[in-house]
Amino acid sequence: AHVPYSPLRYPEETMLQRSEEFYTLMNQRRSVRFISPEPVPREIINNVIRTAGTAPSGAHTEPWTFVVVSDPDMKHQIRLIVEEEEEMNYRQRMGEKWVQDLARLRTNWIKEYLDVAPYLILIFKQTYGILPNGKKKTHYYNEISVSISCGILLAALQNVGLVTVTSTPLNCGPKLRLLLKRPANEKLLMLLPVGYPASDATVPDLKRKHLDDIMLHM
Amino acid sequence: AHVPYSPLRYPEETMLQRSEEFYTLMNQRRSVRFISPEPVPREIINNVIRTAGTAPSGAHTEPWTFVVVSDPDMKHQIRLIVEEEEEMNYRQRMGEKWVQDLARLRTNWIKEYLDVAPYLILIFKQTYGILPNGKKKTHYYNEISVSISCGILLAALQNVGLVTVTSTPLNCGPKLRLLLKRPANEKLLMLLPVGYPASDATVPDLKRKHLDDIMLHM
Ligand SMILES: Cc1cc2nc3c(=O)[nH]c(=O)nc-3n(C[C@H](O)[C@H](O)[C@H](O)COP(=O)(O)O)c2cc1C
Ligand SMILES: Cc1cc2nc3c(=O)[nH]c(=O)nc-3n(C[C@H](O)[C@H](O)[C@H](O)COP(=O)(O)O)c2cc1C
Repeated sequence: AHVPYSPLRYPEETMLQRSEEFYTLMNQRRSVRFISPEPVPREIINNVIRTAGTAPSGAHTEPWTFVVVSDPDMKHQIRLIVEEEEEMNYRQRMGEKWVQDLARLRTNWIKEYLDVAPYLILIFKQTYGILPNGKKKTHYYNEISVSISCGILLAALQNVGLVTVTSTPLNCGPKLRLLLKRPANEKLLMLLPVGYPASDATVPDLKRKHLDDIMLHM
Repeated sequence: AHVPYSPLRYPEETMLQRSEEFYTLMNQRRSVRFISPEPVPREIINNVIRTAGTAPSGAHTEPWTFVVVSDPDMKHQIRLIVEEEEEMNYRQRMGEKWVQDLARLRTNWIKEYLDVAPYLILIFKQTYGILPNGKKKTHYYNEISVSISCGILLAALQNVGLVTVTSTPLNCGPKLRLLLKRPANEKLLMLLPVGYPASDATVPDLKRKHLDDIMLHM
């Protein structure tokens, strides 16, 4: 069944102002690798994930699972897995060019934030679903859908003043999936440590491209 | 160089309220396939794309190009390409199951919105970059980065009361790339018609999963 849809409509001036304010807010987002151990209320994290769950998805498959980890032991086990793999990535797998590209970000395989951040959000993509009759159900464009959902999640975090660093832990997926007891149709896509920034947090002094370098009009 | 980062911090109560309000706003987003021809100020679209350009990206590659099309002839040429390919997709390529999955959304290969919407935003992923010395520069995770950016773009549209339908036109990429004269390193990822909803717009009566069905805590 189809239902009417008539969302709120703003006057043009309000639209313009809202578009500027939202840009200003989002433009202040940075990937933060120094996260404070201060606690963050669970209800806020719940709302952020509720928001991520409003994303569009191919054929409305909603192919995402958000695993929120706050248990210190579990966080530490995740850290051990990630650091072991990341050290091998940096030393052997990534190639010199990639390591050079990352040097200016000063990222390496030591991930203290995995112990320190009050929450780790592990985002899994469901590569297929299971129908009531036990058969597999294809999830079209599941990686794109889950990444869009992650974009909305990042906007929701920024909107409340929390920080994270988007990371795609290379080769850690299978071990983390087993640790977190996720089923075989789920594959780890992203790992986000979430919290307030540390009081002495720094970020690389990056610039963003200008509008003219990312947009064309015709 | 690294620089200090100390973003705005809100009291907990404010955070909770902001997280609820943003959820409510985003939860009202729907994919709308009936778009009004009414004009929308360019500056609002510019701000929405500026906002999308604040997304994180693997190794800060910013691997996105947003082509905004408002010219009626160009929109019509896009429509012809998309409908020709989509008809073949539906009739031959997608398989019966996929077509069935889409039936309840009542989507088919007729895309009137491609003529009607005041703007079409075509989002290209840059699969690699070109260094000053002419060599190729790998863009790690470019599809994930551009999809995250699209999620932020959808949030920005929703924030101003504009609608779209996320679409990934199957097999149209090469022809649309040539039509829009984009270079060989760019691949079409998404096509978003953007405008106000038509006054008689309807949407499929879909429900979203509950928080408990998308989130686990440990
Ligand atoms: C990656 C992706 C591809 C999509 N492709 C199409 C498409 O080609 N045609 C279409 O009508 N809708 C498409 N959609 C929209 C989904 O059908 C829609 O998001 C889903 O049914 C949920 O509805 P909602 O967005 O209103 O919440 C796509 C969505 C995503 C995320
Ligand atoms: C798909 C993806 C993967 C990323 N992987 C990592 C990572 O493994 N480690 C890390 O420190 N940063 C990672 N980042 C963060 C980027 O380095 C960061 O977004 C970029 O440098 C731009 O900085 P900004 O987010 O502060 O604007 C990733 C970002 C994206 C989108």
